[in-house]
Amino acid sequence: MRDFSSDHSALALNTATLGHNLEGYGAGWPVERVIDACAERGLAGIVFWRREIGDRAVEIGDRVRAAGMQVVGLCRTPYLTGSEAPATLDEARASIDMAAGLGTSVLTIVTGGTEPGTKGVSETQKILAERIAALAPYAAERDVKLALEPLNPMFGGDRTCLFTVRDALRVCDMVDAPNVGIAVDVYHVWWDSDLAASCAAAGDRILGFHLCDWLEKTTHMLLDRGMMGDGVADLKAIRRAVEDAGYQGACEVEVFSAENWWKRDPGDVLDTMVERFRTVC
Amino acid sequence: MRDFSSDHSALALNTATLGHNLEGYGAGWPVERVIDACAERGLAGIVFWRREIGDRAVEIGDRVRAAGMQVVGLCRTPYLTGSEAPATLDEARASIDMAAGLGTSVLTIVTGGTEPGTKGVSETQKILAERIAALAPYAAERDVKLALEPLNPMFGGDRTCLFTVRDALRVCDMVDAPNVGIAVDVYHVWWDSDLAASCAAAGDRILGFHLCDWLEKTTHMLLDRGMMGDGVADLKAIRRAVEDAGYQGACEVEVFSAENWWKRDPGDVLDTMVERFRTVC
Repeated sequence: MRDFSSDHSALALNTATLGHNLEGYGAGWPVERVIDACAERGLAGIVFWRREIGDRAVEIGDRVRAAGMQVVGLCRTPYLTGSEAPATLDEARASIDMAAGLGTSVLTIVTGGTEPGTKGVSETQKILAERIAALAPYAAERDVKLALEPLNPMFGGDRTCLFTVRDALRVCDMVDAPNVGIAVDVYHVWWDSDLAASCAAAGDRILGFHLCDWLEKTTHMLLDRGMMGDGVADLKAIRRAVEDAGYQGACEVEVFSAENWWKRDPGDVLDTMVERFRTVC
Repeated sequence: MRDFSSDHSALALNTATLGHNLEGYGAGWPVERVIDACAERGLAGIVFWRREIGDRAVEIGDRVRAAGMQVVGLCRTPYLTGSEAPATLDEARASIDMAAGLGTSVLTIVTGGTEPGTKGVSETQKILAERIAALAPYAAERDVKLALEPLNPMFGGDRTCLFTVRDALRVCDMVDAPNVGIAVDVYHVWWDSDLAASCAAAGDRILGFHLCDWLEKTTHMLLDRGMMGDGVADLKAIRRAVEDAGYQGACEVEVFSAENWWKRDPGDVLDTMVERFRTVC
């Protein structure tokens, strides 16, 4: 396992940690200011959300690289299944185009929920696999990998049909495309006793690793994630599981926190993130 | 799998469906009125919460049996792990006494969360096993079985250290006592692709089966469960998994629903429960 106690060169910011995933949250720093603040602190790179990028993908990607960093990823495709999924894959293809424009190799997929007219998740997982199989060649032509992110089972119904790394791998196996893998997010998988085994089974299909913490007393279903060290997740054990599987990429911090971190000065949030990464991750 | 399309003799009410698990919710029917209403509708029995029983366990148990039903279970021990667990097992033993007084054979355990000073869940699961091992003989002497209930991973941190049937079985194996098993609740396990296999592994250790539904758009972490048929859980597949494992006991309906079912007339709730049990479960 990599030693980060005096090194945060693998650390990346997911801009959701500054509230940029949702309208009306956070301090509202422009993308340029975020890039400069991350570069000043020696970060590896940034993961953006589509709503920040608009039609400036190439410009923003170039600016990140000019600052000595990488665009580590893009969040995310629209839902591909469930009642809120768009009727066609056009928006999903546009998100692949945006990832390509940014020059990032990883586009995250939050799948969407149970398909209308079905129950449970197995039928939805099959439909999901078909839709990803339809997207994968388009992404491959643009050097974009698709990272299926399993979510905490609290998000079943309308947000996901993948609840564990094992679930995500099953869909990867169904798709069987070289540019389709998974993302492992502490918030979603910290509780899973099967995690080390399923990460080992994932191997080089782990395309992303997301850090935060699970607060002992979580008060909101979506917007109450903890900063690393403030919760009960065994962060080192989870990172060991991911790295033992071969993952050597960036560790991106993604803290949805409407009532705490999103109300703080973004510079302080970034400083805390660096300190916690070195001491508790 | 049993055919309930014209038979609800296996149906039981968990009084949480009427809001009786929490102070200040529901219509506030007295226990006697609940018993009469369930008996009138031909239910198999009732599962009570400790707060309803007070020092009247024997009286209430006798009254249920006089009405032709059984006390199917008691909810629940206090937490056994985590920061909210009592310092001693005295209250847990008192809950066993209450179950014995009621004349029920099943006492449910919601474990409590991650132990202070630890991270993740594996250490907590070991501590849990030790504490249950200390309680099991006391329960056995009183003909009470202890049913470990895994909870949806949204309840990690402060409410549980068991997230799947597989987790609960692991702790059962550690305890290795004949009167320690598990409860399977649709709300908590509906998402688990491993459910049929883990129920098969549980076999005759399944001591309870809880019905409700997972609403597509769940709006509250605790109090927004759905009535059977209103959500996305594959109820028949889950019941098949439980019954294929050998379970032939009661199917108890447990719907926490502050904004919907708890605001309705309890008689209507019971009638709906019977109709849904016959048609969609």
